[in-house]
Amino acid sequence: MTIRPRFPDQDYIFLVKSPHRPGSLGFLLSVLGAEGALVGDIKTLFIGKESSFREITVSVFDNEHLEKIKRALLERTKVEIVEIRDIVFERHKGGKIRTSRVKNLDKPEDLRYIYTPGVARVCKKIEEEPETALIYTNISNSVGIFTNGTRVLGLGDIGPRAAMPVMEGKSVLYDQFVGISATPILINTKDPIEFVDIVEKIAPTFGGIHLEDIRTPDCFYIESELIRRLGQPVMHDDQHGTATVLLAAVISALRSTGQEENSRLIFGQLGLGAAGFGIAKLLIDYGFSVIGFDPSEDARKRLIEYGGKEGTIDFIMEQANVIIATTGVVGLITKSMVKKGQIILSLSNPVPEILPDDALDAGAAYAADGQSVNNALAFPGLFKAALSVKAKEISSQMKIAAAQAIADLARPGELVPSIFHSKVHDKVIEKVMGLF
Amino acid sequence: MTIRPRFPDQDYIFLVKSPHRPGSLGFLLSVLGAEGALVGDIKTLFIGKESSFREITVSVFDNEHLEKIKRALLERTKVEIVEIRDIVFERHKGGKIRTSRVKNLDKPEDLRYIYTPGVARVCKKIEEEPETALIYTNISNSVGIFTNGTRVLGLGDIGPRAAMPVMEGKSVLYDQFVGISATPILINTKDPIEFVDIVEKIAPTFGGIHLEDIRTPDCFYIESELIRRLGQPVMHDDQHGTATVLLAAVISALRSTGQEENSRLIFGQLGLGAAGFGIAKLLIDYGFSVIGFDPSEDARKRLIEYGGKEGTIDFIMEQANVIIATTGVVGLITKSMVKKGQIILSLSNPVPEILPDDALDAGAAYAADGQSVNNALAFPGLFKAALSVKAKEISSQMKIAAAQAIADLARPGELVPSIFHSKVHDKVIEKVMGLF
Repeated sequence: MTIRPRFPDQDYIFLVKSPHRPGSLGFLLSVLGAEGALVGDIKTLFIGKESSFREITVSVFDNEHLEKIKRALLERTKVEIVEIRDIVFERHKGGKIRTSRVKNLDKPEDLRYIYTPGVARVCKKIEEEPETALIYTNISNSVGIFTNGTRVLGLGDIGPRAAMPVMEGKSVLYDQFVGISATPILINTKDPIEFVDIVEKIAPTFGGIHLEDIRTPDCFYIESELIRRLGQPVMHDDQHGTATVLLAAVISALRSTGQEENSRLIFGQLGLGAAGFGIAKLLIDYGFSVIGFDPSEDARKRLIEYGGKEGTIDFIMEQANVIIATTGVVGLITKSMVKKGQIILSLSNPVPEILPDDALDAGAAYAADGQSVNNALAFPGLFKAALSVKAKEISSQMKIAAAQAIADLARPGELVPSIFHSKVHDKVIEKVMGLF
Repeated sequence: MTIRPRFPDQDYIFLVKSPHRPGSLGFLLSVLGAEGALVGDIKTLFIGKESSFREITVSVFDNEHLEKIKRALLERTKVEIVEIRDIVFERHKGGKIRTSRVKNLDKPEDLRYIYTPGVARVCKKIEEEPETALIYTNISNSVGIFTNGTRVLGLGDIGPRAAMPVMEGKSVLYDQFVGISATPILINTKDPIEFVDIVEKIAPTFGGIHLEDIRTPDCFYIESELIRRLGQPVMHDDQHGTATVLLAAVISALRSTGQEENSRLIFGQLGLGAAGFGIAKLLIDYGFSVIGFDPSEDARKRLIEYGGKEGTIDFIMEQANVIIATTGVVGLITKSMVKKGQIILSLSNPVPEILPDDALDAGAAYAADGQSVNNALAFPGLFKAALSVKAKEISSQMKIAAAQAIADLARPGELVPSIFHSKVHDKVIEKVMGLF
């Protein structure tokens, strides 16, 4: 079953020809609105005597909704739909990243400098002093983004090649936000042991190892084993990138309710998957008590091994001061389960376990969903800082520092700032580097 | 033992302060010349009343030579050396390539298009129609450059990280000459079976598989096994890139001597390593007879299996119309071994088996060394063509077509054109694509 998101999020550009008469555009937009579509940019391409041509960005829920809107325009307006372009697919044509030269070869001599014979001296230098590879190659500013495509977004196990658009997206964010050269690596195996062996063998190619979209529980073994084997930063973003931003959200929520200094708070976690277990670990490392529930016994065991406790959903809802839900189960938390004064972060996307308004209605002191929780707030700055100080790992302390930096930039009413906040990535880098 | 190249090829920028008087620069340059240094660009930075500051590009043989030149300037001129900069190392700082976004994210909506939620639809599309990965990702225009660093240039087994500068150099050439996005992958194993397994598992990341700087005989197993397992272009550049350019050189040499149409020519090959065996295979596929020698019995066996014959060096020098030497052994061919009318391509770098002038002196109809033979003439265009037509392999026919395109652009007296020839890469692409 596909869960319909709360807002239309499938974007198209409608190229329309409409009568050039007062009220014509307004009527067109009102029909779109009546059908539940959201309207974005409107660009006028051409205005003639009789008709005008415009590009209108329209957001819909899904393909069925799109068809319904096309029919409505056809039946109820005098608009002619010349073309509908799918913005997302257009934007993906040819891919979103590429590996390219930093500097042009302008003259034949340049070849002698970057290739033979000159390059041999650089190779020799690195052979003699291996650490100079970090100076004379791109390695020290690079991250490999590794996936086997076994748990991609909400789509599940779609395989490595179908995961590539997500990996390229991560690479775009690394590049734009912190200037890291990030390369997707698709590994065609579902065997976690083989996955680890392969990453270990090609790890010298990169400064940092970013793990992405790997199913549980494999992701836990893969990450901890790679951390054990490699002397370079390794992070599974779905666990720790997400957990870092969730911790920032928790810090914001505690600030909103004046409880930031209260170390006796009990945290209740519903869902102990990659993100849920990641946040549990960070909360425990931060000094809080955590009670968690997950249908998987293994997941509950992992929490207990890390120092948390297990409990039923009802027990947790009863006992915890702060509820963090990452279950993916729409409507799991009913209003009757909410205790007065509780903080409820119901973070599953696209639809949360309980709507914030319902939680507040039921007496929660603070409630928020996960719409704004984007792990792109954390991973770029975390890796940039780790690479800059040549850290051997990405520790809990580093993640906590990043979460604090993120929370510090949230404005009143915001859980976390936008990833486009002009300072957020620099602040994360600064705060994390401040630990060294 | 390091073999001194025939020309100084280690480049520095000397920042010098010299008396601003007529003849001063001339004297400085004459001292450099007397010491055997070559002079390149001279840039005047500042001219004062008494002295001028200039940057002079100076090429020397090696570090010892550099010290000797510094001493000579100090003792014999009034020049003050303010600074000596190593152009090659400067050019390598921070690396020569990076992976970056094709398009900027300008507005928050852009994130919806390239990342969640939009990206999920692209992933789903690829899951349902796997071939669309070639449209909506960078894969179809990408090459992975794989090495384990076991035979890097003339440096031998220096390990994967020390090989990175060469791999980045290849990537620069791919980018600049044919616009391919090429990513180095260092594999930390000397086991050819493991190497193959790893490349196979991460091959979905790339359109083409470029193998580089892998020792013999491992390179033969690795390449043929990957070709067998993968349905995408695989090429070991040290064999086939080099062989393609050598075949172009052979075609040029045959043209120079009016023997291009003579299919009864016997080719003698001294050296059956990666490059030598690659060219032998191409010559046999082209229809020529090949007699070869190599100290390794396995190498001779490989030639025989492919349809060639073996012979001693003396026998080959006696029988063959065309000699192709790729042994790396300086002075292997003496003047007395050359037969009248022979074509001698003595291709080892930096110093050939026999100097072309000596071969001509001894009666050769044509002689050349490998100074201009650069495999960067072949691999960029070969892979670009293969990716463009979605070829499943890089066949001998494709390499022969590339060699012909390269030979066609050689000017009289040239074996092959410069890699900066404005048309060479386009012509290779065109000729190879013409086969499809």
